[in-house]
Amino acid sequence: MKKISDSAVRRLALYQRFLQEAADAGLDTISSGDLAERGGTTSAQVRKDLSLFGSFGKRGLGYEVQELLREIREILGVDRTWKVALVGAGKIGSALFSYRDFQKRGFRISAAFDSDPAKVGSDMGGVTVRADEEMDRRLRDEGIEMVIVAVPAEAAQAVVDRVVNAGVRAILNFAPVRLRVPRGVALRNVDLTLELEGLSFALTGR
Amino acid sequence: MKKISDSAVRRLALYQRFLQEAADAGLDTISSGDLAERGGTTSAQVRKDLSLFGSFGKRGLGYEVQELLREIREILGVDRTWKVALVGAGKIGSALFSYRDFQKRGFRISAAFDSDPAKVGSDMGGVTVRADEEMDRRLRDEGIEMVIVAVPAEAAQAVVDRVVNAGVRAILNFAPVRLRVPRGVALRNVDLTLELEGLSFALTGR
Repeated sequence: MKKISDSAVRRLALYQRFLQEAADAGLDTISSGDLAERGGTTSAQVRKDLSLFGSFGKRGLGYEVQELLREIREILGVDRTWKVALVGAGKIGSALFSYRDFQKRGFRISAAFDSDPAKVGSDMGGVTVRADEEMDRRLRDEGIEMVIVAVPAEAAQAVVDRVVNAGVRAILNFAPVRLRVPRGVALRNVDLTLELEGLSFALTGR
Repeated sequence: MKKISDSAVRRLALYQRFLQEAADAGLDTISSGDLAERGGTTSAQVRKDLSLFGSFGKRGLGYEVQELLREIREILGVDRTWKVALVGAGKIGSALFSYRDFQKRGFRISAAFDSDPAKVGSDMGGVTVRADEEMDRRLRDEGIEMVIVAVPAEAAQAVVDRVVNAGVRAILNFAPVRLRVPRGVALRNVDLTLELEGLSFALTGR
């Protein structure tokens, strides 16, 4: 099957949210135009995105909300709960830990690690922060599937190498540094300053 | 001049960081291959990106680090300090406030607002959290150029409407909701759950 671009996956995730809202509001069907508006795109793009995965909707009738929602959730793999660990329990890490939207969407942070002895042993919403040295073993023992890295830039690559060695194949990185992972490991970077630089560029108006 | 894509701006910001590191390490010149590695792209793409803004580098000699760094900083508009306000002093907001990389790269959060009376008046690293009702006036009076929105999803659109009315033309949104802004206002969304959904898709391996 065709390789799906990051931007297509992103749009699918946005369609999913709109479908969930439509379902909550009791709507039965939805048009590609409505989905397009939500995804910041065109009706044609919506139809193209969905056609990558099969045949949905009927011309002139739109999409069945519940059916399409179920399909997209399955495609995205969010029709289940994922076991997530947090590495780095500093300010950003703690904020992420208590980010309600993760839990609501099936991403359950069930382990947290930090190298600062002052943080080890503390409780974050029912999860005990563990020492850095315990990380490798616990990632395996607890069957962690995704790791959120929120450590300083200079520590991030070493953490990621260990996480990968412990068998984790999906990493969300908040450290402002470019990381290397082997083929087969999914890595996403959230680079907050880069976003502000994008705004700065827009304002500078060159 | 040609419209520059978001992804090109993103790569420029990454080149900038590598150039800064190279400058700090005392390097005089750098090749497009080195920049490509940092930007996660190809030498050809680097040359294409830079050619959008003028003629840099000499064939076979690479780019002059200091010159290119200065140029890219000017292009991105990060050769100056920006006045930033934070709306929403909850966990994510507070973490962003103390995010060292913002300050280091010229984004100075000089005002903070919250609607929670318990937070109003508290000090965040020298900045006093102000009441929501003071926001519109202070954004104008203090000449705020960018706003970081870290309020709950249901409050975000109303905040953004007010921010735009107060003359701010650049918004970084952390609320998990799609916002509308008028033409001429730059909006970037950091949607943390979307990133995890991207990883979930990658692991599901469809």
